[in-house]
Amino acid sequence: MTFMEKLSAAMQKNNSLVCVGLDPAIGKLPECIRNRPDAIYEFNCRIVDATKDLVCAYKPQAAYYAGQDCDEALKESILYIKKTAPEVPVILDVKRGDIGSTAEYYAKEAFERYQADAVTVNPYMGFDAVKPFLDYEDKGVIILCRTSNKFSGDLQNLVADGRPLYEHVALLVKDKWNTAKNAALVVGATYPEELKALRELCPDMPFLVPGVGAQGGDVEKVVKFGCTADKCGIIVNSSRGIIYASKGEDYAEAAGKAALELRDQINSYR
Amino acid sequence: MTFMEKLSAAMQKNNSLVCVGLDPAIGKLPECIRNRPDAIYEFNCRIVDATKDLVCAYKPQAAYYAGQDCDEALKESILYIKKTAPEVPVILDVKRGDIGSTAEYYAKEAFERYQADAVTVNPYMGFDAVKPFLDYEDKGVIILCRTSNKFSGDLQNLVADGRPLYEHVALLVKDKWNTAKNAALVVGATYPEELKALRELCPDMPFLVPGVGAQGGDVEKVVKFGCTADKCGIIVNSSRGIIYASKGEDYAEAAGKAALELRDQINSYR
Repeated sequence: MTFMEKLSAAMQKNNSLVCVGLDPAIGKLPECIRNRPDAIYEFNCRIVDATKDLVCAYKPQAAYYAGQDCDEALKESILYIKKTAPEVPVILDVKRGDIGSTAEYYAKEAFERYQADAVTVNPYMGFDAVKPFLDYEDKGVIILCRTSNKFSGDLQNLVADGRPLYEHVALLVKDKWNTAKNAALVVGATYPEELKALRELCPDMPFLVPGVGAQGGDVEKVVKFGCTADKCGIIVNSSRGIIYASKGEDYAEAAGKAALELRDQINSYR
Repeated sequence: MTFMEKLSAAMQKNNSLVCVGLDPAIGKLPECIRNRPDAIYEFNCRIVDATKDLVCAYKPQAAYYAGQDCDEALKESILYIKKTAPEVPVILDVKRGDIGSTAEYYAKEAFERYQADAVTVNPYMGFDAVKPFLDYEDKGVIILCRTSNKFSGDLQNLVADGRPLYEHVALLVKDKWNTAKNAALVVGATYPEELKALRELCPDMPFLVPGVGAQGGDVEKVVKFGCTADKCGIIVNSSRGIIYASKGEDYAEAAGKAALELRDQINSYR
């Protein structure tokens, strides 16, 4: 089953467009778990247990594992998802981008070492930096387009030939790069008008939409502007808003509740 | 000592603008070493032994270690450089870029976990994606500007307000981001006219110049167009051209010879 098929099936089965970002920072974990040697893995497992019937994807952010020297916890967490929630795809958020011969090794990292179903990549270096990922045709390749952060406009809003840079990215992906139909775009929730314009440019392509929750994106606009004609097409990521819903011993239960609320809130606008 | 001071001192001491890219692929290592359990670490150490008096920097490419599941070899190789060639700075080539709270973890990865002196980063997400790296003021932050690969122009050549995108990056870095004077730019050797224009825009900023050797960049033009007024200012990277100069048992000796030749070739044009 390809990433796109798996994503679509998980959206149907769980009636959900919610993606949970697994971005565990040791210092922010509940005290009851923080000092365990396997704290990050254990935390992720309990979050997965509590949310696996409520989501369409998980998105571990590689930086948290790389920066805290716990690659093994990332690998084991993905294996745990594959064992306990095999129907839910895993998007490894790495935002890589490099010359082709190097990007091949990053593709191996994501798809072979970590067994991710999809990966995020950066388009700045152009087609040959993205192709080694796209060549894994069963995997998803989610390309940064309009990102959710405050200064994303520094480059992305520059206008060339009458279009902002991020629209050029969308058109390159849609018209040239996506020959295997395994590409998607990252479009932040914090810029809903841009989301709307991008959906008009790319009526069918899935969008990974970060930026609701801690970053303040408007859920109603995201759903109304972002969904495809079949009322799917968006993967709405929340990380901190779900995984840190409680800092107490009820953290997993609270995460499940937060995921349910976000799922239902999204569905109320579909 | 800051990265910039260390780089300048190494350029002086070794009379060299050569950077050796430590990008070891197991399948391409000499047969005499390939099957050792510590092959990558051992290979790097012997390359360092043979080149440490001939270079101004080493640049391990993180993808090779991540993709071959040997992060420990990366860490140990950097420690080996710090022990045997403490005057030569290490640039960890990771090309990261993410929202601020995430980029902090990538900065920790590069500067704390791996003890790199400098790092490469991707500017597509804007200032807040780069700032967590720049905040390590003693470290170097080398920002992708005009990259050496074939399709780098897909986005980088788009013209906004009369300038190609990569010149906007150069000006953002020079005029706004580089408040601690620890930034540099990646400018590929394969586009010498663009290198010339960028040097005119940024007369003093160091450029990391990949693309000579296997990628075919012209050394004479790189030196003539890229050097600053003091005949420094460029870090000329060669990876495959040096580390794979021989596939025989003389691989280290051959790497030393290739590094010496590149150093002297560069110096003949300075």
